Amino acid sequence: MIQACISLMTDFGLQDTYVGQMKGVIAAINPAAVVIDLTHAIPPQQIVQGAMALADSVQAFPPGTIHVAVVDPGVGTTRRAIAAEIGHSKFVCPDNGILTLILQREKVHRAVQLDNPRWHRPSVSATFHGRDLFAPVAAAWSLGHDLAELGSPVTTPLVQLPWPDLHIETSPQETTVRGQVLAIDHFGNLITNVTQTAVPGETSDLRIEFASRVLSSIHRCYGDQAEGECLALFGSSGRLEIAIVNGNAARELKAAVGRPITIRWSR
Amino acid sequence: MIQACISLMTDFGLQDTYVGQMKGVIAAINPAAVVIDLTHAIPPQQIVQGAMALADSVQAFPPGTIHVAVVDPGVGTTRRAIAAEIGHSKFVCPDNGILTLILQREKVHRAVQLDNPRWHRPSVSATFHGRDLFAPVAAAWSLGHDLAELGSPVTTPLVQLPWPDLHIETSPQETTVRGQVLAIDHFGNLITNVTQTAVPGETSDLRIEFASRVLSSIHRCYGDQAEGECLALFGSSGRLEIAIVNGNAARELKAAVGRPITIRWSR
Amino acid sequence: MIQACISLMTDFGLQDTYVGQMKGVIAAINPAAVVIDLTHAIPPQQIVQGAMALADSVQAFPPGTIHVAVVDPGVGTTRRAIAAEIGHSKFVCPDNGILTLILQREKVHRAVQLDNPRWHRPSVSATFHGRDLFAPVAAAWSLGHDLAELGSPVTTPLVQLPWPDLHIETSPQETTVRGQVLAIDHFGNLITNVTQTAVPGETSDLRIEFASRVLSSIHRCYGDQAEGECLALFGSSGRLEIAIVNGNAARELKAAVGRPITIRWSR
Repeated sequence: MIQACISLMTDFGLQDTYVGQMKGVIAAINPAAVVIDLTHAIPPQQIVQGAMALADSVQAFPPGTIHVAVVDPGVGTTRRAIAAEIGHSKFVCPDNGILTLILQREKVHRAVQLDNPRWHRPSVSATFHGRDLFAPVAAAWSLGHDLAELGSPVTTPLVQLPWPDLHIETSPQETTVRGQVLAIDHFGNLITNVTQTAVPGETSDLRIEFASRVLSSIHRCYGDQAEGECLALFGSSGRLEIAIVNGNAARELKAAVGRPITIRWSR
Repeated sequence: MIQACISLMTDFGLQDTYVGQMKGVIAAINPAAVVIDLTHAIPPQQIVQGAMALADSVQAFPPGTIHVAVVDPGVGTTRRAIAAEIGHSKFVCPDNGILTLILQREKVHRAVQLDNPRWHRPSVSATFHGRDLFAPVAAAWSLGHDLAELGSPVTTPLVQLPWPDLHIETSPQETTVRGQVLAIDHFGNLITNVTQTAVPGETSDLRIEFASRVLSSIHRCYGDQAEGECLALFGSSGRLEIAIVNGNAARELKAAVGRPITIRWSR
Repeated sequence: MIQACISLMTDFGLQDTYVGQMKGVIAAINPAAVVIDLTHAIPPQQIVQGAMALADSVQAFPPGTIHVAVVDPGVGTTRRAIAAEIGHSKFVCPDNGILTLILQREKVHRAVQLDNPRWHRPSVSATFHGRDLFAPVAAAWSLGHDLAELGSPVTTPLVQLPWPDLHIETSPQETTVRGQVLAIDHFGNLITNVTQTAVPGETSDLRIEFASRVLSSIHRCYGDQAEGECLALFGSSGRLEIAIVNGNAARELKAAVGRPITIRWSR
């Protein structure tokens, strides 16, 4: 038995027994695996949100961790099921764009299509590949089997979804960065696609326009402002967040995913 | 230390520390046990839903797994607390019908009443047997103690609850199967008590009547129909489900547990 | 590798990947640690509720368990981050009052401020000490490092928050105990700050006044009364609870945290 690390991310929620069944299947193959829930609350079928959650998390895990990511509206159709070595991590997932952000940042070393039935459960349901295909393949991989044993090499590029890019405009007077809210976390913090590299570290006339608010600085932590104040800061995954100190920004600013944010400063 | 597998199913939710406390108790007795959450979201005191969740999941777990199932409105009363070897699995639970579906399918090899206080916590709360009785007994069992050490043999049948059966009517012209919705999952899929054996594999004039819809076929996977379409399929536990592709059937069809479904075909 | 036990309690919820990332960090340092979720549903920034959940749970865990408690509105500010040996347990947390109830009951053996960067992640986010500071310190501690290696000794008292005390009035005729609801659990049970020692075991004329109800006895378990009845009992953490049998007392009595409860009896 090898004490490998397997993370699980799905849109299954924790209401049903789906996640528990996946863990049962893994335990039957490699009971020594350290199985960690990344999250099971990706909104149903929202591959883009899953892609972001996955990409923002992998650096916290041990190198070689096998990340099982199942947001899979196409389960049972012809979409490919794959396993891949990318950067320092391993992935087992449908090839439907769930790796989009990972692929933007990291190099694919090897990838296979999961067409070797030896590692699948004896009877594969057409609706629950999480349990019958992805979980047992990940568990087998965690035992030390080589990727090549899991299936035949993938010869066409992995699927990448269009990603909401930043728009940067530069005039002689001013630079303007236009982004949007990508996700809302449990605290109601609004997490945008504005990254630290897109915004200057020091500028005297920064203007952040969001909802009806105009903010003039980027803070370091939530406690930098008084309770109830709105602030902007770079969160733990390096994305600009709009937050209300000890409050819920999404609710108080009535802001949802997709809401635009603009940052301007003089040149 | 023995690396046995213990699953936990309760109606405790994850808001409070109840489940965490059960795991603390287990870790104090057998830290090497692999402890897996089956689900803690059985609706409060709903033994029938717990019975279905348990029966639909055990086959995904390693043989010999100890399933701790605590949906227990009678905690502290005279209802029996039991441990039992049934089929390839082990169970630790109140004897209140939570094993109803398991008992319909599998043979009881041995069962005991948990009346040996040696395995209980020193002070047993009258309201939290999950922590003070079921968890420590399961942990002790996972160390390799024989079932007979846990208590005295059960000599009367285990409790079985009435179960919503299928009604099948046959006329010279037509067969009609009448069932109902047993559960609604996280995706809003409506899971019925119609099993694969009750419906013919091939028939040209199948009619599935549910809510105001009439469906004429059973599909293989959600991706078989276009987004927003209503379809019927056999889900991963072999039960007929009504689903809306990438939508929420329970919400869109305004359907709840108990809603009838009818399937007809010519003889 | 040492199979130590680490519990995690936060206000992060399970929607995001925050808890998963903390576990990834721990697995990279001590994959053999038994990591147990105490709860991640402490209401955002509610230190008092976290303090109670923690204090009510530690006795269920093995001696020496490292409890990581992150309800931390002051993350990134000058509030201290600490590790401490208290009673039979170990704690890693912000010094913001989260240990208030533990400190009322147990003796602090040693405490350090987490100022040794050797155990922190290479880059510490100002908003996510759970991942970058508390998790890696706890994991390092679980490997057997001495507390003194984690930072320099704390020389001033740990923070304690004001706690809602019981008020006890004694007249020649009557004793009156006035308390309040501290928490509402998943079942809607109203958990108060009235403990078993404050109320006599036997008295013929007990009167419990709560909301519009007057109860005249303290029951042993929920099943002692008929479905739908309101009852009082001492719950699994030794606190007086108001419950509705197989119902939701908080909803049916429209009661929230802070609601007063009065218990009277003749002298």
